[in-house]
Formats: sequence, C-alpha cells, structure tokens
Amino acid sequence: MCQLLGMNCATPTDITFSFSGFAARGGSTDHHADGWGIAFFEDKACRLFIDHESAATSVIAQLVKHYPIKSRNVIAHIRKATFGVIKLENCHPFQRELWGRHWIFAHNGHLTGYDPALHGIYQPVGSTDSEQAFCDLLEGLRTRFGSSAPSLDALFDALAELVVPLCQYGTFNFLLSNGQALFAYATTRLQYVVREWPFQKAHLVDTDMDIDFSLYAKPGDRVAVIATEPLTDDENWTPFQTGELIWFQDGKPVRRTLTLSPEEQVAARGRAVTAADL
Amino acid sequence: MCQLLGMNCATPTDITFSFSGFAARGGSTDHHADGWGIAFFEDKACRLFIDHESAATSVIAQLVKHYPIKSRNVIAHIRKATFGVIKLENCHPFQRELWGRHWIFAHNGHLTGYDPALHGIYQPVGSTDSEQAFCDLLEGLRTRFGSSAPSLDALFDALAELVVPLCQYGTFNFLLSNGQALFAYATTRLQYVVREWPFQKAHLVDTDMDIDFSLYAKPGDRVAVIATEPLTDDENWTPFQTGELIWFQDGKPVRRTLTLSPEEQVAARGRAVTAADL
Repeated sequence: MCQLLGMNCATPTDITFSFSGFAARGGSTDHHADGWGIAFFEDKACRLFIDHESAATSVIAQLVKHYPIKSRNVIAHIRKATFGVIKLENCHPFQRELWGRHWIFAHNGHLTGYDPALHGIYQPVGSTDSEQAFCDLLEGLRTRFGSSAPSLDALFDALAELVVPLCQYGTFNFLLSNGQALFAYATTRLQYVVREWPFQKAHLVDTDMDIDFSLYAKPGDRVAVIATEPLTDDENWTPFQTGELIWFQDGKPVRRTLTLSPEEQVAARGRAVTAADL
Repeated sequence: MCQLLGMNCATPTDITFSFSGFAARGGSTDHHADGWGIAFFEDKACRLFIDHESAATSVIAQLVKHYPIKSRNVIAHIRKATFGVIKLENCHPFQRELWGRHWIFAHNGHLTGYDPALHGIYQPVGSTDSEQAFCDLLEGLRTRFGSSAPSLDALFDALAELVVPLCQYGTFNFLLSNGQALFAYATTRLQYVVREWPFQKAHLVDTDMDIDFSLYAKPGDRVAVIATEPLTDDENWTPFQTGELIWFQDGKPVRRTLTLSPEEQVAARGRAVTAADL
C-alpha cells in the first residue's frame, strides 16, 4: 500500500538522486500515486513536505528533486491508498514533538483491528492506522521515560519492546527519527545499503539515471539508504529480517536486534498482507 | 523583529497576491531577511514551509508565490533575528498537535525575562521566547480542558485569559490557528482588512502589483487578511487595539474582546519594544 525511503548520514547530504528514483514509483513506474511526503531534519528542526498529489507529478516533489536540501536524517513515503481516504491529513510522514525534539514517522503495512487506547497526549489528526501507531509508540516512550529524554541506547531498548504488540495486528514496517538517529523496523520488507569510501557508481532501477558518488563524496562521508525495495540495481542491498529493529547513526547500523522469537516471526510472516495490498 | 501575515477565509482561497507583497519585506523592501515560514491548513491537515533563507530570495518562497495552495487558514512570518540565532528551529510558524488537530502559531515581539515553568507535554525545540509562549498557551489550554476539545467559544474565553500574564513580559502580537478558526492578538501592531462582495481592486505597497478581486471572487467568498502593517495602500485596514483578541472565522471577525484594563493597556504600550527592535 505504500513504500518507504530513509536516509541516515555521517555528514549532511542531499537525497536528490535516491528521491528521483523513489518519486517515480509514485505514479510513473509504480502505482503509489495517492500522496507522498518527505521530512528533512536539520539538527533539531525539521522540514516536512506533504502532498496528496502523486509524487511523480507534484510541483512540490519537483522542487524536492531539484533543490538539494542537505540533511543527516530523511524519511520519505509514497502512498497507495487502500485504507483511509486520499486526504492531506493521511499523508505520511507524521510529525509530533517529544522531549523538545521533533519526531517523524512513516509506515508501510496495515494493522487490522488495531484500536489503541490512547490517553490523549498524542491524538491522530487523520484516519490512518499508521498515525495511531505513531501516537501509540510516542505515548509508550513518554510513559516509560516521563518528560526527560533517555539515552539513545535506552530509547532503542524501549522501542524494541514497544513494537512487539503492534506486530500482532499485521504488517508493520516503519521509519522513525528524532533527528539524532534513524530507527528502522520491518516485519516484511525493508532493505538498506551503506555507501562509504571508496564510493562507487550506482544506477537507479526506476529512471535511467546513474551517479558516480566518488566524484562528489569525501572520505568522511557515509550514507545509509533504507527502502522498501532496492532503488539501485548495482549495489548490495541487505534485507531486514522479520522483526528486526536497526538503529542507524552516522550513516551505518550501530545497533540491531531481533524483537520476535522464531515462532513470532513465523506468525508475523503469516499475517503479512498479500501482494495485492502492497 | 519580524512581521506577521494571516488569512482566514469563507472558502478555500490562495494567498499568492498578499504573500508576494509580504515576502518582499523579507530582504527586498524591508530587512526581515533572517528566515520565514508559512502554514496552510487544508481541513485538519497542515502544510508548513519554513526556511532560514530570506523570503525575498528563497527557492521555497518562489514556489509558494507561484503555486496557488488554497486554504481557509494561513499563517506566515518573516523574521529579523534580534534574539535567538538564525536556525531553522527558530523559524516561525511553530506547529504542535492538541486534541487531534494541528495548531500553528507565529509571534511578533519579544518577551523579556519570560521563563515559563512548562511541565513537559509541550517543550520548545528551538531557543525563541515565541515557541516558549506557544507551548505555554497550549499547556494552559490542555490544563483547562483535559484531553477533549472545548467549543470554540470556550476556547476563545480561555485564550483571552491565558494571554494576559504573557503581556507583562513585553510585546505580544500573535496569530494562532487550529484549522477551524484563526485567533489574532495584539499588544502593539496588527491590522486587518475584510474583502467581500462586491470585491474591489487592491494595490500592494511593497511591489508594483495590483489585482481586481471582482474578476476572481464569487458572492459567497470572503477573506480576512491580518498583517503587522497594511499590505495594500488602497484598502481600509483596521488596527487592533492594545490587548485585543479577535476570533476570525468564515473570513470575518466573529468575536472580539479587550483582554486588558485601561491601566494594563497603558503599561503594555509602555513595554513595547522600540522601533529599532522591530
């Protein structure tokens, strides 16, 4: 029902290359044409662009493709509406504030029968299960840690526990960032690639476009790109395992954990939505 | 130190005309070149564009000037940094969620010695007194009404009380919207004009541009524009009184109240920042 794109970098980097391929899936090379969005962190602040037009044709997507906004954490989403109407309020990524930082969340999948008892600190604006899940996760973090931010290690451990009950409801692949790190979780489909020194060439699957990163990048640069499906056809993309949570920082995975037992993994794969929903 | 622009409409309307004049003040006809932002509500959802470039030259401002986004509630801000560094996190408008709606806030003025004891539900991301005041107001609303939204009348009454203590700290002109209504408050400088049937021509002060609204607008259309200084030189702009709170809906003022006593008004005017700060 949608696709995810994330980028986490050691140094501020623009996403124009990867976004060009990704945006083509929003109505040109693929059918995810019911809205899109992208969030760029700049330190603690965040620029969020959302649109209910198709990413392939949107005027705002054109700007994002051609105006290099440099960021260390980016989350993007293109939507094929299967649940929830095509409205701006249902476009991912979603944004909330917690502990004096903006948090950004985008989800791929569907949570059937999911109706969390939220206590009102975070309430969904739109009608998606995805925004409910985001509010639920943030409420869970706030309940555990109160009004002061924990360490990133403690945050990772908490997320690894908080995601488990949500997996019962269906497909739960998501990207989450607070500008310090990017957390990626998959029950079915998510892959990543790390680009670092010595940089190579890469060719986009979706548009006939390639780039030689070695002409632009410096030795200290490093970029992790996370996507529902590989964006390039000449790089080694690593698939997430079922129930795997990975913390990306400085352009690479720094911690990873399997949140589900082997039995729970089998059950999660069994609950995966069918290809027709994707 | 900055200027405000708001628009509240009976029917979704684009702000390209007024924003063209307003953006010129961000580095071209005036010196408010240290960032800008604009928020457009579309029903409950909100598009927020912020930039630390000058509004007169920003690529994103060019898009906003030429891409007619139709909205019933718009809030824009251009910044001349006198307090707080030029960073994206200090660019207005600010956004938070309350009662399942996005809220948008922009402020003109400075609150000296203001250090509210916030309890953590809303925490500033940047370092401006303005974002502190926004968090303070939302916390005040949440404390009064809990996790369920009150009527707009009750909301207006609460705001009229919550603003008073903040006026003690200095100049407090602001625009606030939750997508249903636009609330505007002034201790020193804010003016508004209502455009309605039969529509007239208008000429911008800041760029040699005029428009005949009667060629575009229909009988049911009505638009209230609120700005720090009049944007046109051939319309009748109404100045706010010191301490006046006005609730705009359907393109017109629907309730207004003076929040300060005559003595408090004199004191508020006495605390107004000097022209050098503006």
